[in-house]
Parts: sequence; structure tokens; C-alpha cells
Amino acid sequence: MKMSASLFPRGLALVAVACVIACSPPEAVVEVVEPVASDPLTSWTDGPAKSEIIEFVRVVANETGSGYVAPEDRIATFDNDGTLWPSHPMYAQLAFAVDRIKALAPQHPEWQTQQPFKAVLDNDLEALGAAGEKGLIELVMASHAGMSTAEFESLVSDWMATARHPRFDRLYTELAYQPMLELLDYLRANGFKTYIVSGGGIEFMRPMTQAVYGIPPGQVIGSSIKTEYKMEEGEPALMRLPEIDFIDDKAGKPVGINKFIGRRPIAAFGNSAGDREMLEWTGAGSGARLMMLVFHDDADREYAYGPANGLPSTHFGGFPQKLMDEANKQGWIVISMKNDWRRIFSIDE
Amino acid sequence: MKMSASLFPRGLALVAVACVIACSPPEAVVEVVEPVASDPLTSWTDGPAKSEIIEFVRVVANETGSGYVAPEDRIATFDNDGTLWPSHPMYAQLAFAVDRIKALAPQHPEWQTQQPFKAVLDNDLEALGAAGEKGLIELVMASHAGMSTAEFESLVSDWMATARHPRFDRLYTELAYQPMLELLDYLRANGFKTYIVSGGGIEFMRPMTQAVYGIPPGQVIGSSIKTEYKMEEGEPALMRLPEIDFIDDKAGKPVGINKFIGRRPIAAFGNSAGDREMLEWTGAGSGARLMMLVFHDDADREYAYGPANGLPSTHFGGFPQKLMDEANKQGWIVISMKNDWRRIFSIDE
Repeated sequence: MKMSASLFPRGLALVAVACVIACSPPEAVVEVVEPVASDPLTSWTDGPAKSEIIEFVRVVANETGSGYVAPEDRIATFDNDGTLWPSHPMYAQLAFAVDRIKALAPQHPEWQTQQPFKAVLDNDLEALGAAGEKGLIELVMASHAGMSTAEFESLVSDWMATARHPRFDRLYTELAYQPMLELLDYLRANGFKTYIVSGGGIEFMRPMTQAVYGIPPGQVIGSSIKTEYKMEEGEPALMRLPEIDFIDDKAGKPVGINKFIGRRPIAAFGNSAGDREMLEWTGAGSGARLMMLVFHDDADREYAYGPANGLPSTHFGGFPQKLMDEANKQGWIVISMKNDWRRIFSIDE
Repeated sequence: MKMSASLFPRGLALVAVACVIACSPPEAVVEVVEPVASDPLTSWTDGPAKSEIIEFVRVVANETGSGYVAPEDRIATFDNDGTLWPSHPMYAQLAFAVDRIKALAPQHPEWQTQQPFKAVLDNDLEALGAAGEKGLIELVMASHAGMSTAEFESLVSDWMATARHPRFDRLYTELAYQPMLELLDYLRANGFKTYIVSGGGIEFMRPMTQAVYGIPPGQVIGSSIKTEYKMEEGEPALMRLPEIDFIDDKAGKPVGINKFIGRRPIAAFGNSAGDREMLEWTGAGSGARLMMLVFHDDADREYAYGPANGLPSTHFGGFPQKLMDEANKQGWIVISMKNDWRRIFSIDE
């Protein structure tokens, strides 16, 4: 008894030591306790993309090496659409806006003839894509504003729980890319804090990011419309206004990162021209860096689009040749969905 | 040997269990390992303010009670100036702006006759205060913009390391209120995530919040000017523009909280009319709530100002009678510096 009593505090002392070293993100604990998983990235093929990730993590987590990075500086930022889940045949948020516009259409007869609303009501995806960013913003204003943040959250949550992807016939939340989920887990297990930095709406993503990606709302950065604090029937509410607050895309991404995180990432993951500046900003810091771009070159299992490498163009998250050239020049790793990913979705065999 | 080998994994298993329960914030570890501190709030007198805090924490952390709050929802927001450190004789950020304006004055002869710059150069605190928010913004634009975020951070860090408070003759960073430091630690030890939500500049605070308050940059919300991402001599930089991005004060505080945290706080701490909406928004959520206001009624040890309760008015973080009336009506706890705090600064005996 005496012996076990004296061992007990030693066990607790280990708690302290292990926690100080590794517990900042709770996920790290698993790594300490369980035998090191033989392969934390099982859905990745054994190619250059996977080895670059593993080597980078080894370098920044190696306390005695010259590339060591303190845990509080292990910031990794991820674009969402096309990087963590599909952006085709259209952005999920656009699909949500389309459903909202259709539901609201009876109160707006003028939409029958007015673009981009007409395109929505006609299910004309080509005209919708051609409406461009301006068109998307009009749809967002008409479908995302004029209600409280609480009402909007409830609309989004209901939609996420029921809307199905037109090709895969699954909830959008079931279509997170399995290799990226493993990457998120792997980074967090190694002391990283993972953020989403997306051109998508911040309040559209937040209701699902914890459950789907393990990323809490405070680590989600996105585009936003303005909100106004006011009393509604004696209760304070944040009302969503039809006015752009911030566009978290292209040069807006480093701005958003600086505003929300206040530290420069050491790793950044994207898939389109909207991510270029985020990778550039990440890469311009000193020390070990990892910049990666998902390239959609797998029409069989997901989609194939560029226009880089001669693949078809798209209105939804294109990967221009210029981005491919910059990736090659800067040493950014291009992830081929076809070659680097053994599995695309968790539902795949 | 065999026995100790079998005990070793048990120690590690304890790591896992203890971490899952308590390690989210590393500070929690200390509470698990060491005997429970007899009094985590030693700088607070045994009055109603202290007991309300302890009772609130007991309720939200009690897993079997009806007031239990899951750790991810234990969000506590703190105003900075006047709540965590002094806002008198003027805001620290204004003192910084004053020093910058004086340093830049030789390049701006027009400032000799132009308000609010003249007030700065004449050391006319009354005229400076009377210039109001508009005057403060002009000073901020002239002194905080036109450089990169990296240059600004370096200016602020240098200033924080050398500028001394005119009355206490200490670095500003040495003047954090000791009772509030204990409160921050106590909340974090009980699974809370602590945020600053201040009308002050977000990039003015971030260089010091981790060291002074244990709050990392990503948990600091404040007012901001716009930044622009651009190439400066071939390197990407975020340039600070002389244009307001966001004022995180009054009705801006719930807006900032929603934007940055995406969850409603369950505890909020302020000291002035600028904090009213933050406390109101916090209090309007369901479940256990704690709202507190620091009342500066101690001219001997710090400052005394209102105008509530007949104390003198101030230009820097006033506590109007109307706020006192609302506090009493809503059940917000008013902290009397004189009666509730045994010690003001860590340097006090």
C-alpha cells in the first residue's frame, strides 16, 4: 500500500510534465498515451506530398533541431471550399443561397426576370457562374441578411442536416475529404492549432466546423456581412445587414489572418487562385514552412478542373496555370487528388 | 523492473484521463496536480464580489449540477483599459500616441497650431480629453498608420519596454491589476477561455497580452484600422492605412465578440459605459452568467472617478450613474476597488 501510495503522486507528476509539453491541444494527449500510430495519413499514397508533410512536422516538432517551432507558433490555415470539401458543381454556400432564394421567391415576383435570381429559379448553373462575384454577393445579400445571427445559424444548421450533394447524394458534411481530415488530426496531434481561412461566409461555416473538422468557431475566418447590435422585443440581438463587412479572399486572406490570429501561419493549404496570397504570406516568414495546393484532377472520383495543365475551366475555385507556375517556382506542393489520395471521402471503400 | 514497467503505462493512462478532463488550457494542469490552493483570489477581500465569482465558477464547473457549462462554452471576456490595467491619467494607447506625435512633430510644423496635435505638444491633458473620440481617432491615424504591421509591432514593443506611468513610475505592463490577474488564472484553471474585448487598438495590445495577462494574440479583440496586403521591395507586407476598420466599443463589443469568437460569453468584465452592451449581451444568454464592473473609487491607491455615486467625471472611461443604475437593476456586480481589492498592483505590499 505504501508503495502504491508513493507511486500515485509520481503518476500525477507525469500528468504535469506530459501536459506542459504536449497538452495544449487535447488531441496531443492521444499521441502521448497510445503507441505512435504506424501511419497517421492512411488515405494518402506514399508519394512526395505525404513525405513532405511528415518531414515538415518532424522538423518543426523536433526540439533539438534547428527547425523547431514552439507550439504556440504552430499555426496552420486551411481554405475550405475545394480544399477541405468539394466546391463543385457549385459552392455549398451557393447551394444554400439557391435553396433560400427559391423559398423566398413567392414574395419576390421581380426575381422571375431579374439576374442573378432568374438563373437560380431556372436552375441555370452556367448563368449563375457567369454572374461572378457580384452576382454571388447579390444572392448572399438577398438570402443571408435581414435576420438575427441566431435565426441565420438555425437556418444553416437545418440546411446542413438535410441538403444533399447533387452528385454524391450525401449530406455536404459527409463529404469532407478524408485525407484532409487525417491531416488536420495529424497536425493537431503534433501541437498545431488549425484554422479555416475561407472566402466563404464565416457564419455559414461555423455551425458545422467543430463537428466536421474539429475546428471551433473562434478558429474559423471567412467573409462576413455587417451586423448591428439592437434590441428586438426587449432582447438584445445581432441583426445581419445587407452590407459587406469583409471579403476573406485573395489579398483579404493575409488581412483576415492578421486580424483574427495575430500570428503568421507556418503552414497553409488551399486549392485556387483565391489562396495565392495566403500561401505567399505564409511562405514569406522565416523558418520551416509548408505550403500546399489541392489540384482537382480526378473526374472519376470527384472533379477535374483547372484551367491549369489543360483541364477545363470553372467558375467555382479555378486553378489557373499562373498559380501552377508560381507553385512550381516557390516550391509549393501541388497535391494531385488522383495520385496522392488513396481515398477521397470517408464513405469510400 | 517488470513491475515498474507495468506501472509506467498506468502513469501515462492517468495523463490521458487527466488531460481529457482538465488540460485544455495548460493552466488547468496545475490545479489537477497540486493540492487545491486554499485561496485562488488572495488579493480579493472576503466580500460579495469574491463570493459571487467563486459561486459562479463552482456552479458552471459542477458536472452534476443544473448550471453546468461545457468547457468549450466557458468563454469570459474582459475589457482592458480600466478593467485589467489603469486608464488614468489617460489611456496607455493615448500616451503611446502622444509620444509618437512628439517624435513626428518636427516633420509636421502645422501641428503647432492644429488641434488635437497642439494639445499633445502643449501637454494639455484637458484639451486632449475634450477632443473626444474624434480627436483620439485623428491622433491614432497620424501616429499608428503609414507603416507595416511588423514595424508597428516593433514600435509598440519598444514603447512597452520603456514607457513609464507618470504617477506610479512603473512600466505600464507592471500595472496590471493583481486581483484581475488572479481572476484570469482562476477562470482558466477552471476550463475557461479568456478573451480581451477592448475599445483599444487590437495591434497595440497584442504585443503584450500573452506576457502580461496570459492571453494569446488570437484571443484579443479590439478596434482596428484597415490593412492592405502588398509587395514592399519584393516582400509581402501588411500596410496600415489611415482608415477605421472597426470600433470595438459600446454596441461594437457584441459585434466583435460574435465576429471573433462566434460564441456568446458566459462571463464579462468591464468598467465603463463602453462595456454596457457587452454585459447586456452576455447576460441575455441562458444559464449561469457573471457580469461585473470595476468601479474606481480608490483615489489613494489608484484613481476615483464616476460620475456615478458623486465621484468626479472623466474623459477616460467614465462610469455614469445610468450604468450604476442598470448594474443594480440587472444584478451586475460592481467591484469596489477600495473595498473588494486587498491589493491593486503586484508591486504593492
